[in-house]
Amino acid sequence: MNELELVRAIRRHAGAPESKSVVLGIGDDCAILRPPRGHDLLITTDFLIEGIHFVRAKQTAAEIGWKALARGLSDIAAMGGTAQAAFFSIAAAPWVSGHFIAGFYRGARRLAAMHRVSIAGGDVSRAREFVCDVTVAGSVPRGKALRRDGARPGEVIVVSGPLGRAAAAGYLEHPGPRPRLDAGKALMRARATSCMDLSDGLAMDLHRLAVESGVSAVLDGVLPSAPGATLEHALFGGEDYELLATLPPRRKLPRGFTRIGEIVKGKPGRVTFAGAPLPPKGWDPLAAK
Amino acid sequence: MNELELVRAIRRHAGAPESKSVVLGIGDDCAILRPPRGHDLLITTDFLIEGIHFVRAKQTAAEIGWKALARGLSDIAAMGGTAQAAFFSIAAAPWVSGHFIAGFYRGARRLAAMHRVSIAGGDVSRAREFVCDVTVAGSVPRGKALRRDGARPGEVIVVSGPLGRAAAAGYLEHPGPRPRLDAGKALMRARATSCMDLSDGLAMDLHRLAVESGVSAVLDGVLPSAPGATLEHALFGGEDYELLATLPPRRKLPRGFTRIGEIVKGKPGRVTFAGAPLPPKGWDPLAAK
Repeated sequence: MNELELVRAIRRHAGAPESKSVVLGIGDDCAILRPPRGHDLLITTDFLIEGIHFVRAKQTAAEIGWKALARGLSDIAAMGGTAQAAFFSIAAAPWVSGHFIAGFYRGARRLAAMHRVSIAGGDVSRAREFVCDVTVAGSVPRGKALRRDGARPGEVIVVSGPLGRAAAAGYLEHPGPRPRLDAGKALMRARATSCMDLSDGLAMDLHRLAVESGVSAVLDGVLPSAPGATLEHALFGGEDYELLATLPPRRKLPRGFTRIGEIVKGKPGRVTFAGAPLPPKGWDPLAAK
Repeated sequence: MNELELVRAIRRHAGAPESKSVVLGIGDDCAILRPPRGHDLLITTDFLIEGIHFVRAKQTAAEIGWKALARGLSDIAAMGGTAQAAFFSIAAAPWVSGHFIAGFYRGARRLAAMHRVSIAGGDVSRAREFVCDVTVAGSVPRGKALRRDGARPGEVIVVSGPLGRAAAAGYLEHPGPRPRLDAGKALMRARATSCMDLSDGLAMDLHRLAVESGVSAVLDGVLPSAPGATLEHALFGGEDYELLATLPPRRKLPRGFTRIGEIVKGKPGRVTFAGAPLPPKGWDPLAAK
């Protein structure tokens, strides 16, 4: 495939715009977006790389395309936002076929359609392994985005669902994660004080949130765990894509959220679990494998 | 370097926000942007890959970082827009050192500062070759973006400067391209009817513009050429990053622009040069090397 053929295959499989906010999609120098009036804009980029984030022998093209988009949508969810447009930059490895591209976009498009997200652009090149970088643009009512730096002592720590699912399934056997956009919007409406998505495991990610907020965190010692997940999976397993957030004390928890601990004064980033220090280790994609 | 170390090196070298439109930069799940009121948003993504877009032995880290950003800024220029934020997704090859990262961001930051662009986020991973994908977000007054599909018969074809510079210099010996953001804004104010940046050569890119607009193009036969550039370089050389645009007849050309031909009725995408058909060939990064 030369560049034009690959671009044509992508245009054919990327599908029609889903979001009303996208004025102009694939085919020009830039995409043109018109987010709702009075909204701030959210932008995130996430890699999906062969041998690091997926293994060809274990996952279908559609699962790979789904996951490539899911990572970015989860970042929009973590800000309490709505996703509008996705941009797929694809460096094709020598093994990449038109069949793979069709399957990849079928998976991505299925997830995009669930959230009314347009695939609005990207770039095309080649590399020795398949490298995909997905940018997602979204929006959130002005000033309402959920950040990592807002947690304060006395607040309650919550998660949006069971932990350790991907680790228990052995990561690559795990079907595509479902980005928790509804849960993020519920947190935004409930005026959560901080939020992030759990991509590298609770221990690592809660440490990061506590560092950004300048606080310590105390976990009660009981966690909602996915079927088959050990405590180790729930604490240190990556790729859960559930949301981790803090809420003011005595605030009613949004539906589906579980309290797992409390924010306290102390060394920024310090986390304890059932009274013992919890090291900030987790799933490091650069160290993995 | 593990992921945290690499992220810290990038945070250290990415520098402080330059754009007033960036509410929140590196470090959270998403960046938060607040573009000027009454503006549409522009988004573009461009790869810079080792062995395709640069060769380590021939270019400094700072030149590579400059070029990674220049490609995206040029796309914003081609829409008549102003750039605000850049997102660098970097997959580090085994040879990548802290020294390289520092130089890479020094080059990118120098160009970013010239245009008041914030480096506001990105992703970090690893690959066998160095892969960088840069997303640039910008804005343009609502409804004023210059697209590829607006050229109409009778209009004048113009370019923003001399052609064939990178080809004449042998591409890799060519110092970093200068994105023509001022030229793009001048075209937007002059109500140009279409525009794109010249990345793959005049013959290929004018063909694309004519396809999107559903018109043919007639080149006069005289082109502004860079010093040392042959006619072949000016017609088929890539990586010029000058702007190609169309203007209504008898409209005063913005400063620095040269007339090179005219839009006519005919087969969409057909281009002639001094009366003879010009094939849509150019610099294909997938075919190159």
